[in-house]
Amino acid sequence: MRPEFEVTILGNTSSIPVHGRNHSAQIVQIGQELILIDCGEATQIQLRKFKIKTSKLDYIFISHLHGDHYLGLVGLLSSFHLGKRSRPLTIYGPQGLDEIITTHFRWSNTRLSYPIHFQETKDDQLNLLLNHPKFMVYSFPLKHRLPTTGFLVREKPRLRNLIKAKLEEQKLPLEAIQSLRQGMDHIGVDGSFYAVREYCYPPDPVRAYAYCSDTIYWPDLKDYIQGVDLLYHESTFLEPDKERASVTFHSTASQAAEIAKMSKVKKLLLGHFSSRYKDLTGMKNEAETIFQEVELSEEGKTYSI
Amino acid sequence: MRPEFEVTILGNTSSIPVHGRNHSAQIVQIGQELILIDCGEATQIQLRKFKIKTSKLDYIFISHLHGDHYLGLVGLLSSFHLGKRSRPLTIYGPQGLDEIITTHFRWSNTRLSYPIHFQETKDDQLNLLLNHPKFMVYSFPLKHRLPTTGFLVREKPRLRNLIKAKLEEQKLPLEAIQSLRQGMDHIGVDGSFYAVREYCYPPDPVRAYAYCSDTIYWPDLKDYIQGVDLLYHESTFLEPDKERASVTFHSTASQAAEIAKMSKVKKLLLGHFSSRYKDLTGMKNEAETIFQEVELSEEGKTYSI
Repeated sequence: MRPEFEVTILGNTSSIPVHGRNHSAQIVQIGQELILIDCGEATQIQLRKFKIKTSKLDYIFISHLHGDHYLGLVGLLSSFHLGKRSRPLTIYGPQGLDEIITTHFRWSNTRLSYPIHFQETKDDQLNLLLNHPKFMVYSFPLKHRLPTTGFLVREKPRLRNLIKAKLEEQKLPLEAIQSLRQGMDHIGVDGSFYAVREYCYPPDPVRAYAYCSDTIYWPDLKDYIQGVDLLYHESTFLEPDKERASVTFHSTASQAAEIAKMSKVKKLLLGHFSSRYKDLTGMKNEAETIFQEVELSEEGKTYSI
Repeated sequence: MRPEFEVTILGNTSSIPVHGRNHSAQIVQIGQELILIDCGEATQIQLRKFKIKTSKLDYIFISHLHGDHYLGLVGLLSSFHLGKRSRPLTIYGPQGLDEIITTHFRWSNTRLSYPIHFQETKDDQLNLLLNHPKFMVYSFPLKHRLPTTGFLVREKPRLRNLIKAKLEEQKLPLEAIQSLRQGMDHIGVDGSFYAVREYCYPPDPVRAYAYCSDTIYWPDLKDYIQGVDLLYHESTFLEPDKERASVTFHSTASQAAEIAKMSKVKKLLLGHFSSRYKDLTGMKNEAETIFQEVELSEEGKTYSI
């Protein structure tokens, strides 16, 4: 069975938190690992509301320094401290985030119970941020009013499954099994040869998730997110407010769908909705005229990747 | 009729926001004026939840720089900006709060749509912070792990009411009426004499509210809050956790009641409850053995002062 790879939406609203919607934050689960992407105000409250345990949350990624994407961070870090966390935590975010965090803790005279590693992100190109044994996280540029990055989470290839019938036919040496499961042909010291495609089932395709928080419509984006299984793309406005989207460096639902289409993603998840829209039906309708596999993100809901 | 003077609790929990309780924040309404005291994370969400309009909120008071008392501030200020606020806002708080606010807005490249005046508080003695035509706000020292102040909100004496029967007996000159209503006897240019106590009803007593956010049990506190109509005093722990209260510079429910008793306040409102207590009945029971007029603060509930 494939390990879980899914995203749970904690907040999907832009600017002012209204209509019961909260600021941007989401939890991506890959197997037993959790990462948090963006951390708007009240993220810790949302985490508790949806009963998400954070004991295995070791990585936080912040897309940019507009308040609706990070103002819950210091509160979350404080609660980890009060909960006596000791595991190190790594935070990836733009220049300035470390100054903001340290300014808070300097004035509150707090020495955290756990170490924080901070890694600055750059919005210049595709950059590998985290090379975890099970997955990789990259940042890539978005076009917004501040330095902003999206994030790409890609599984690593898993060990291949051996074909049972073959194992029953002959006893394989341990080294051969190890090589084959890693997708490599094996030649034994006695010259025996084991070909992967003969002994193993084809590999599961590796899955990928892309998060595009705040960006103006930007076709070059397709180069970074080509063919991902799930694309979360901001959809702050509807087409009648296209001018406003452009001025504020945001996208419309149609534009998000255009990006999904040209990037050949499997599914598009819309979010970061403006407070001006209480009913979001129009968002889905608008996007569907361009790209069929669209869903409106809902807080507390988990989407399989 | 006396103008309204009341407090609405937005949050009453300490440290970690659990059991559906939020971090410290409360709105005091005096007539048509609003002030906000403390501004924990998600205060803007609580304000909306309880349908409190902030268009007339011109003053914010922050007791100290532990996150549970101010981490909602930058988000609230940002939302005022997004809502195109133009009225000036005055923030009173300890040294460092201005640096924290400006660090955020510098990195988010935000020029607010309204001016903020910042006034630093000191925890040395009773200090008059705001001399409003209708009320005064003072800070006074508390004893906590950081520089911390409580706040005292006191009405100003209102214009006196003239005794109707007297007005029917004789026509008073306008100047006499003005003096009498302000509580002053009046002597006319013709030597006529009008005594306040003869022409006016006795003045309504002026009401006062005291907020003591975080403090160790500290009997000297009574000098600052003597005889107030309503005292909000922190009650982080119960007596069995008295040692923990002392180490963390907090109070128990009993200690809060002792302070209320020695300060001869009319009523005690308990708050700032530790996350370790889900059921708060014990808090009220404990305090009532020492001071009769006790109430547990509840979020969204308004208490008359």
